[in-house]
Amino acid sequence: MPASPHLLAVDWGTSRLRAYLVDAAGAVLARAESEEGVAALGGKGHAEAFARVAGAWRAAHPDAPVWFAGMIGSRNGWREARYVRAPASLADLAAGALEVDLPGGGTGRIVPGVIVGEPGASDVMRGEETVAFGATGEGLVCIPGTHAKWLVMKDGRLATFRSFVTGEMFGLLRDKSFIGSLGKPGEDAAAFRRGLDASGEAASLLSTAFRARTGVLDGSLRAEGVADFLSGLLIGTEIRSARAAFGQEPLTLVAGPTLEPRYLAAFAHLKVEAQRRVQREALLAGLVRIATAARA
Amino acid sequence: MPASPHLLAVDWGTSRLRAYLVDAAGAVLARAESEEGVAALGGKGHAEAFARVAGAWRAAHPDAPVWFAGMIGSRNGWREARYVRAPASLADLAAGALEVDLPGGGTGRIVPGVIVGEPGASDVMRGEETVAFGATGEGLVCIPGTHAKWLVMKDGRLATFRSFVTGEMFGLLRDKSFIGSLGKPGEDAAAFRRGLDASGEAASLLSTAFRARTGVLDGSLRAEGVADFLSGLLIGTEIRSARAAFGQEPLTLVAGPTLEPRYLAAFAHLKVEAQRRVQREALLAGLVRIATAARA
Repeated sequence: MPASPHLLAVDWGTSRLRAYLVDAAGAVLARAESEEGVAALGGKGHAEAFARVAGAWRAAHPDAPVWFAGMIGSRNGWREARYVRAPASLADLAAGALEVDLPGGGTGRIVPGVIVGEPGASDVMRGEETVAFGATGEGLVCIPGTHAKWLVMKDGRLATFRSFVTGEMFGLLRDKSFIGSLGKPGEDAAAFRRGLDASGEAASLLSTAFRARTGVLDGSLRAEGVADFLSGLLIGTEIRSARAAFGQEPLTLVAGPTLEPRYLAAFAHLKVEAQRRVQREALLAGLVRIATAARA
Repeated sequence: MPASPHLLAVDWGTSRLRAYLVDAAGAVLARAESEEGVAALGGKGHAEAFARVAGAWRAAHPDAPVWFAGMIGSRNGWREARYVRAPASLADLAAGALEVDLPGGGTGRIVPGVIVGEPGASDVMRGEETVAFGATGEGLVCIPGTHAKWLVMKDGRLATFRSFVTGEMFGLLRDKSFIGSLGKPGEDAAAFRRGLDASGEAASLLSTAFRARTGVLDGSLRAEGVADFLSGLLIGTEIRSARAAFGQEPLTLVAGPTLEPRYLAAFAHLKVEAQRRVQREALLAGLVRIATAARA
């Protein structure tokens, strides 16, 4: 394959496909987006969905490497990419990529996931490794979400990481639980801070979560503050637990627009310093770095 | 009201009404049951439901005191009984009872709930105080359930207690979560013990719960073991946390037939000694003790 100065980078997650045409310097020449995420496609039609978004770019730049990252490499995606083991470098991710046949010929590469720990105590991710490599080469990286990830980057490698089911637990407690049933829609910054404080107590989350209910009964929490209390409790638990496990290294927050302000408020209240990166930009930067490592 | 040697004791919870005609020695002369629990009644028709179950007894023993315990005294019950503050004695519960007019005349009494802690860090129960007083006057009492309670009984008084949302969290994770979605119906005692062990790690529940998923992916957990792993993880967290808070006092488990074997297995694995009492018998015994204290 002759070297092309261009690159097609595709961020293909559960709910969305974002494609970028990138030049040799890493600058974005064009972008395209579709709602044909992995969930909507339901396990089929990936080649066609890709062609609809990126077909014209491929016709114009037939030799440009094509790289995919995200849940597109999961069991429910296009094809299941392996997990490479942490510690992992950019070169390890590049070498572990899964090749897929592209519509109209040529080969695309799906970034592998990463696994850490022995069976029975393992942890996995898919997509966040690319985000983290785009964000920094050193320190702690926090990527909030349904299954939030905290990653330790060391000497340009992904050393280890841990998942927290913070976002999923929040949705369950707020929307599906008896505990959350006293809540009303609303925003309450004080309740969020109360949740952050409660996360620092010795009592288990199984007990402190019940305070979302008793707080409304004892008058200390407004019904409009239940969701914020639970959010603070869970985010606070995540932050304290991750920092206890991984130390106080320089911290980079890589979040989307919904969760970034919540985590920044939590860091401020807990007196944690963090720099921030925009999640979709970090993913693209990481994908460019992995593709560049593959060419090296 | 002339003293009657008899007592009508009614265990009226969310899903069931159980009524007992008790003699002066506390022996059960007759029992009756209905599915008209607090939830099914939806806030109305309590007097009529009680009359259907206990009307004949009342006609035969019109002067027998009538006592109710359980969620019948909640906001969604017959009428809302107050919470008395812990530490609380049998006499405090008797004095804090709420009087309700009975069909056909006379007065019934609903055992109050109990509250502990200051606003913002309070905890409440309704029904478990009666169970605990029927089980023991000394030591730690574990009452598993949707919102499990651990109570400290000291010198014949309920000193303090703490709630754990163990049962509710288990239902959410098993039935409503992505984490539980890899599970299949089945039983796996080894997975239950693995969950108990994981509950002793420093990592937060927000991380260890994710192992229900990674365990299936890494081959260390059968899909049939997901529910048992989560059950062990949550019950283990509850037991460790309660014992850390309340010490290692003599422990009494007061459970129903579904949860008793799970907690006994957990105690055995964690080398915790416990005596056991049957939950419905303990509630009746507690109600008799409270009614007796009211007559004193």
